[in-house]
Amino acid sequence: MSLLVVGSLAFDSIETPSGKRENELGGSAVYFSLAASAYGPVRLVGPVGDDFPLSITSGWKARGIDAEGLEVVKGGLTFRWSGRYTGDMNAAETLKTDLNVLGTFQPKVPASFRDSEFVFLANTHPATQASVLSQVAKPKFVLVDTMNFWIESARTALLHLLRRVDGLLLNDGEARMLAAETNLIAAGKAILEMGPKWVIVKKGEHGSFLFSREHFYALPAYPAERVVDPTGAGDTFAGGLMGSLARDGVVDLASLKRAMLHGTVTASFTVEKFGTASIAAVNSAAAEARYREFLKFVSP
Amino acid sequence: MSLLVVGSLAFDSIETPSGKRENELGGSAVYFSLAASAYGPVRLVGPVGDDFPLSITSGWKARGIDAEGLEVVKGGLTFRWSGRYTGDMNAAETLKTDLNVLGTFQPKVPASFRDSEFVFLANTHPATQASVLSQVAKPKFVLVDTMNFWIESARTALLHLLRRVDGLLLNDGEARMLAAETNLIAAGKAILEMGPKWVIVKKGEHGSFLFSREHFYALPAYPAERVVDPTGAGDTFAGGLMGSLARDGVVDLASLKRAMLHGTVTASFTVEKFGTASIAAVNSAAAEARYREFLKFVSP
Repeated sequence: MSLLVVGSLAFDSIETPSGKRENELGGSAVYFSLAASAYGPVRLVGPVGDDFPLSITSGWKARGIDAEGLEVVKGGLTFRWSGRYTGDMNAAETLKTDLNVLGTFQPKVPASFRDSEFVFLANTHPATQASVLSQVAKPKFVLVDTMNFWIESARTALLHLLRRVDGLLLNDGEARMLAAETNLIAAGKAILEMGPKWVIVKKGEHGSFLFSREHFYALPAYPAERVVDPTGAGDTFAGGLMGSLARDGVVDLASLKRAMLHGTVTASFTVEKFGTASIAAVNSAAAEARYREFLKFVSP
Repeated sequence: MSLLVVGSLAFDSIETPSGKRENELGGSAVYFSLAASAYGPVRLVGPVGDDFPLSITSGWKARGIDAEGLEVVKGGLTFRWSGRYTGDMNAAETLKTDLNVLGTFQPKVPASFRDSEFVFLANTHPATQASVLSQVAKPKFVLVDTMNFWIESARTALLHLLRRVDGLLLNDGEARMLAAETNLIAAGKAILEMGPKWVIVKKGEHGSFLFSREHFYALPAYPAERVVDPTGAGDTFAGGLMGSLARDGVVDLASLKRAMLHGTVTASFTVEKFGTASIAAVNSAAAEARYREFLKFVSP
């Protein structure tokens, strides 16, 4: 089924214990699309400046990524982020953020994308995320991402949005903050009361949780022996998850469990190399092979 | 099959966000035995002082705990530990340790216990653990626990012991320290090279890992919504694990996975109340019911 992502395209400068990279292609919509396209076609909406060489997207069509929603802002600069990972690499230290064209981005969903059935709203202001929802005709499943910044600075808009979406994706610290609960299980349950039918909590190297009113599911992370660069792991998780769900075409406990396994698999590829180098090379066969291996690691 | 534990009996003074308790019955052998006895009989070896009211053990026989190996040291005092848990409660801050009779304890395995098939050597000096091994005729499966203190101060004795046991149980920080590896997956594999066929890494609220040369298994923790007192969770995990293994009577990947699930289940009971109050009330039916519930939470 059709899958839409609305998010960022970026140039990242990254420092990890494995080395440094300048101006790596990045952004939530990029990582998401590269992961999801291992499962089926993806429609991308996001802004770039005219410093963005469109040649970067040359391989996307063959991969099933439809970039009709790529908005090139004349005279604008592409979003830039620079960050550093140290120690256990579970969290990045942001060194610099230049929002550039992302700062004034008002997403316009192309007419040909308005029938999208599966929709991922990558992290941005919840009011902007809400404006996308109003441009999609009749989505079957909408998953929204957020972060601590919006939980603190745009709580009302976020709470309003949560009543309109099917699922919320966030990390453990954000879940605790949103629910004002130290215990993560209690936090997940509290967030369900805010509206979404499904809450998915990412815990980095500790895996992920799925909450619904009727179900709970806990999944460990893929046992990565070497993490080179965690950038994009969360958005790649979302991409594998939504790619798997859209391929299945149904949303229930079984398809969501499978989707979380696939999200874990795509994220495990991403962290193996800097930037998008690893996930961009993952095809359906590679994803399926690691999925089967991972399934063995987590099956009681 | 027969199951032996050699470890400590203690009086604990505990402070957690839920309150304070003085002189709670504790100790590795106690928590272990209470958990394992939900699965079958247990043989206990450990020392107390004559300040230890033997009435405490009055319910043990009915539970299947054979305390013939309880050594009462005349004129001695029972081991005392006091500690505090704050924040996410993943680690205790030790306020005071009075080893007392534990400091000079030379375990003597009663003749009737020497045919034990499953053996758990709770945390103590590795040379003392080794002396127990020499008193057991032909164990089928020996699991040893250790801690950072012995990894640092008795490394040679520990490495010698590891070549004589089937399994090593330790927490994530200890595994990293023993292997001198930051990455936990790499650490687990490195420890296998030190001798044990199975390495089980406890990660508190993040679950546990099982390593062997051929297999890897990752299990999340039970989703506890309220943790009152984590004291004894690790020894209760070991008790449920070894109780389940001894009941199965075989040691392979399937029985070890089941054992880790049961260890997680018994540990989840322990943390619900101060001290041994919760685990002492868990019978076979309660453990099985939570096992079935937990299995649902972690089955892909």
